[in-house]
Amino acid sequence: MIEIERRFLVATTPDVLPVPMQIEQAYVTTEPIAVRVRRLDDHHILTIKGGSGLERLEIERDLAAAEFDALWGIATELRIAKRRHRIDLGDGYIAELDLYDGELSGRSIVEVEFPDVETAGAFSPPDWFGREVTLDKRYSNAELARNGWPTTD
Amino acid sequence: MIEIERRFLVATTPDVLPVPMQIEQAYVTTEPIAVRVRRLDDHHILTIKGGSGLERLEIERDLAAAEFDALWGIATELRIAKRRHRIDLGDGYIAELDLYDGELSGRSIVEVEFPDVETAGAFSPPDWFGREVTLDKRYSNAELARNGWPTTD
Repeated sequence: MIEIERRFLVATTPDVLPVPMQIEQAYVTTEPIAVRVRRLDDHHILTIKGGSGLERLEIERDLAAAEFDALWGIATELRIAKRRHRIDLGDGYIAELDLYDGELSGRSIVEVEFPDVETAGAFSPPDWFGREVTLDKRYSNAELARNGWPTTD
Repeated sequence: MIEIERRFLVATTPDVLPVPMQIEQAYVTTEPIAVRVRRLDDHHILTIKGGSGLERLEIERDLAAAEFDALWGIATELRIAKRRHRIDLGDGYIAELDLYDGELSGRSIVEVEFPDVETAGAFSPPDWFGREVTLDKRYSNAELARNGWPTTD
């Protein structure tokens, strides 16, 4: 229920990438919590996210396709499309490299999820990771959907 | 996924009532859709409601108690407590008579859910039902939580 995740800009995209999952997501609302609907390949998922930073509330449930369509139709504006490449970093760490499409085309974010705060703190990002943006709300997906990519790093 | 329901004021509360279910509910947000968390006796339920009037979008999922608590803590203001009496009206119709507690104490609403619009249209309310408020948004639970009971009928 608590998602512990660190997010980074991407300094250098790796040359060789795994086959991505296709993600389309939209926000029905973002305040005081985010209500997100996501199509991940052929799965449909409802996610409620609260808070910001390293530890966030996250409640997820599967949706039927018709439920997804109904909520997607309400979330007309705040949409994001991206390809997600899941990269094994070793030591049990998985990087999720998101390459954005649509209005954010050419932009990318990489994130790593952890089972607890200690593991998150012990993580050393590889060289291809860029600046950490875990605490920089401008780079949350909800804010990227709303405001686009920040004009200053 | 589509809830078809007619709502009425209560002209006369029946003398004999079934044992009620205890309901506490709160709205995390109400626009553009309502995100409601409800404790119904010892069950915890997440409901997303869209639209207004006779036919509304409704998506429901069970919540773990800890998930309910987290969302309840966010939904600090828009709360409702009520006792729900389920009354058999015959012909397959069930009335849900809600007697409000807390700030709406003494107020009541009765609603009947239908499998389709035709059945909803064919329903004849019994004498103890009052004015129909299906299309009067002021009497939705989200609006009652926000604004209290309307000062004019």
